Amino acid sequence: MIRINEHYTKLKASYLFSDIAKRVSAFQEAHPEKDVIKLGIGDVTRALPTACVEAFHKAVDDMATEAGFHGYGPEQGYAFLRDAIAENDFKSRGADISPDEIFVSDGAKCDTGNIQEIFSGDATIAIPDPVYPVYLDTNVMAGRTGANNDGRYEGVVYLDCREENGFIPALPEKPVDLIYLCFPNNPTGTTITKEQLKAWVDYAKENRAIILYDAAYEAFVTDESLPRSIYEVEGAKEVAIEFRSFSKTAGFTGTRCAFTVVPKELKAWDADGNAHSVHALWNRRHCTKFNGVSYPVQKAAAAVYSEEGKAQVKGLVDYYLNNAAIIRKEMAALGYELVGGDNSPYIWINGKCDSWEFFDLLLTKAGVVCTPGAGFGSCGNGFIRISAFNSLENVEKAMARIREALN
Amino acid sequence: MIRINEHYTKLKASYLFSDIAKRVSAFQEAHPEKDVIKLGIGDVTRALPTACVEAFHKAVDDMATEAGFHGYGPEQGYAFLRDAIAENDFKSRGADISPDEIFVSDGAKCDTGNIQEIFSGDATIAIPDPVYPVYLDTNVMAGRTGANNDGRYEGVVYLDCREENGFIPALPEKPVDLIYLCFPNNPTGTTITKEQLKAWVDYAKENRAIILYDAAYEAFVTDESLPRSIYEVEGAKEVAIEFRSFSKTAGFTGTRCAFTVVPKELKAWDADGNAHSVHALWNRRHCTKFNGVSYPVQKAAAAVYSEEGKAQVKGLVDYYLNNAAIIRKEMAALGYELVGGDNSPYIWINGKCDSWEFFDLLLTKAGVVCTPGAGFGSCGNGFIRISAFNSLENVEKAMARIREALN
Repeated sequence: MIRINEHYTKLKASYLFSDIAKRVSAFQEAHPEKDVIKLGIGDVTRALPTACVEAFHKAVDDMATEAGFHGYGPEQGYAFLRDAIAENDFKSRGADISPDEIFVSDGAKCDTGNIQEIFSGDATIAIPDPVYPVYLDTNVMAGRTGANNDGRYEGVVYLDCREENGFIPALPEKPVDLIYLCFPNNPTGTTITKEQLKAWVDYAKENRAIILYDAAYEAFVTDESLPRSIYEVEGAKEVAIEFRSFSKTAGFTGTRCAFTVVPKELKAWDADGNAHSVHALWNRRHCTKFNGVSYPVQKAAAAVYSEEGKAQVKGLVDYYLNNAAIIRKEMAALGYELVGGDNSPYIWINGKCDSWEFFDLLLTKAGVVCTPGAGFGSCGNGFIRISAFNSLENVEKAMARIREALN
Repeated sequence: MIRINEHYTKLKASYLFSDIAKRVSAFQEAHPEKDVIKLGIGDVTRALPTACVEAFHKAVDDMATEAGFHGYGPEQGYAFLRDAIAENDFKSRGADISPDEIFVSDGAKCDTGNIQEIFSGDATIAIPDPVYPVYLDTNVMAGRTGANNDGRYEGVVYLDCREENGFIPALPEKPVDLIYLCFPNNPTGTTITKEQLKAWVDYAKENRAIILYDAAYEAFVTDESLPRSIYEVEGAKEVAIEFRSFSKTAGFTGTRCAFTVVPKELKAWDADGNAHSVHALWNRRHCTKFNGVSYPVQKAAAAVYSEEGKAQVKGLVDYYLNNAAIIRKEMAALGYELVGGDNSPYIWINGKCDSWEFFDLLLTKAGVVCTPGAGFGSCGNGFIRISAFNSLENVEKAMARIREALN
């Protein structure tokens, strides 16, 4: 008799976005005359950069001829893209990452979800709270947690991110094996300094732990003193895997391209104490369960690194950062404490009440949709996340309505 | 201390294609004047159908404007594609599959590799020999097997496919939980009748097992009496998951689009004997670890179902089937026993000697690359696979050379 993976039954159903959708549609039915502005989900809205569109078309034309046709490509991605990534995203910033340490994929969600497979089933994981739910759910599915009690899974070391610690978690008090970190952070929008990150790298070295570093929002870092890659921190290549994406950088949420860096120095151990190459393990996983990213999509992604592409991506990021600055300014003027939005597209606001109460207030009084912080973990209660991913016009309109409603 | 997933250390390194590449490049270095014709790997060579190219371009243009831009889409795929699949691939053939039972993905390799995650870690798996290595390797990684002894993993129920049984395996003698089947078969090119498949469906029902049915090559079935989907067999919706791909059908190996059908009737059980919906489990896995296929790629795939697309895909399939017929005829004329190639792009040839010996013979005497059957499992020894995926001109040249070398 075929049995299910019973770890799935431990998963707390994530009603966050469906709950939001239900409340929004109920409001819209009751008030069909009001147009609702959505600053909830972290999805981009602006067109693909022209350089990417042109490269995309050209690659589709390649596929239309026998001479230019591309069948199966290398599972790890084409050299034209891996070389451009290594040069522009790492070497130019002093991080010595080589092209064969880069694995191109169709999404950071897949990679951050799949990476745990190559590690022991009884590894102790440390996960921030609030957090992007994929890190946690994929470990629940793999059986690394116990049951969910009052919103927290047994066996997980939660890293609390609160106003008291500036939303940068303290080092764990007990040894952990896998540490998920994300900066600029989703959902709080906070950033980490090199010194703060160095403490985590040192901790990982001392405890022979591995840091899974999600840098999907690095393009929004404008403060040059802040690291955009964990590999800007000395010693990180021995202890960290980094996840990147073209989704938020170049508007690829619907086009799908990302990559993961696994340095060759990185080691994990077997029960007998023998060291194994994590790069070799991930390469085996990647080649066995993945067949590479669409050739035209990789060509479109590579155009991000052309001169035109770089300028256009900067334009996109600046546009959203300008939205974020407006949201920051308006919410601060209304007296709310907040973080994020300066080096991040997300603003994390202390609503001084239940997250859902504040969500309902913004929806019903201002017709603006945000995301209740409680949906990201228990430390998120009392907060809301506002996303800068929308048009300037809509952001200005939303802020004017909120000002009027809350003043 | 972070430990590895030690099941990975059980994996027998797959040297098949790298061994082939080494032997080919050694031969080419020694004989730089000879051009080698590759009929080894199962990768298509002809351009994308015009209908797909046009739809692809149009969708890229959508992404270039704010009004037409698509961000995150539904993880399961857009309705325009799922509706077309349900109608054309299933309903039109009498198989009652609804669009919401279809999960669009970026490859059948990913799906056939990932599907085992939703089932119990101690499920007994039945796997054909010879076989596409992904089914086996992903179960080894997940810990469902013991060590590899003499080329076979402990704990796996191997389904021998030999000349004696027409390469259609007998039902297992002991109960199994998950059964991998692939028709038209890779690597043997054999097909299965509805009656033969019905025996497997009945077995699965009786034993509460699930059949994982890989139909990636169904487009090559020209014999109208043969099933193209397992759901053409009565009762299959209660016991089978089917994997499909646009790779071999429409030349999408480098464009990446596939889909998996999980019927809502399909059940698996927990330890207490409660039935669970496999559709719900897969949906949870799919939404947690995957972010949907690129919008322009889905548009290109949907064009396969337009009138022009259907005609062009038929043209592609017929072209490769004509190659296959030539290979069959020539190898049969040389006195070799073979199967496949009539409803499949693969021809499975009994070389009457060691697989690698025959491989070397074809390479050195004829300058033709095939795949040694032993690379697909121990029952493959003595056989080679020749693939019809190349130009007619190359296939004719390769066959002329083989005729001359072996006559």
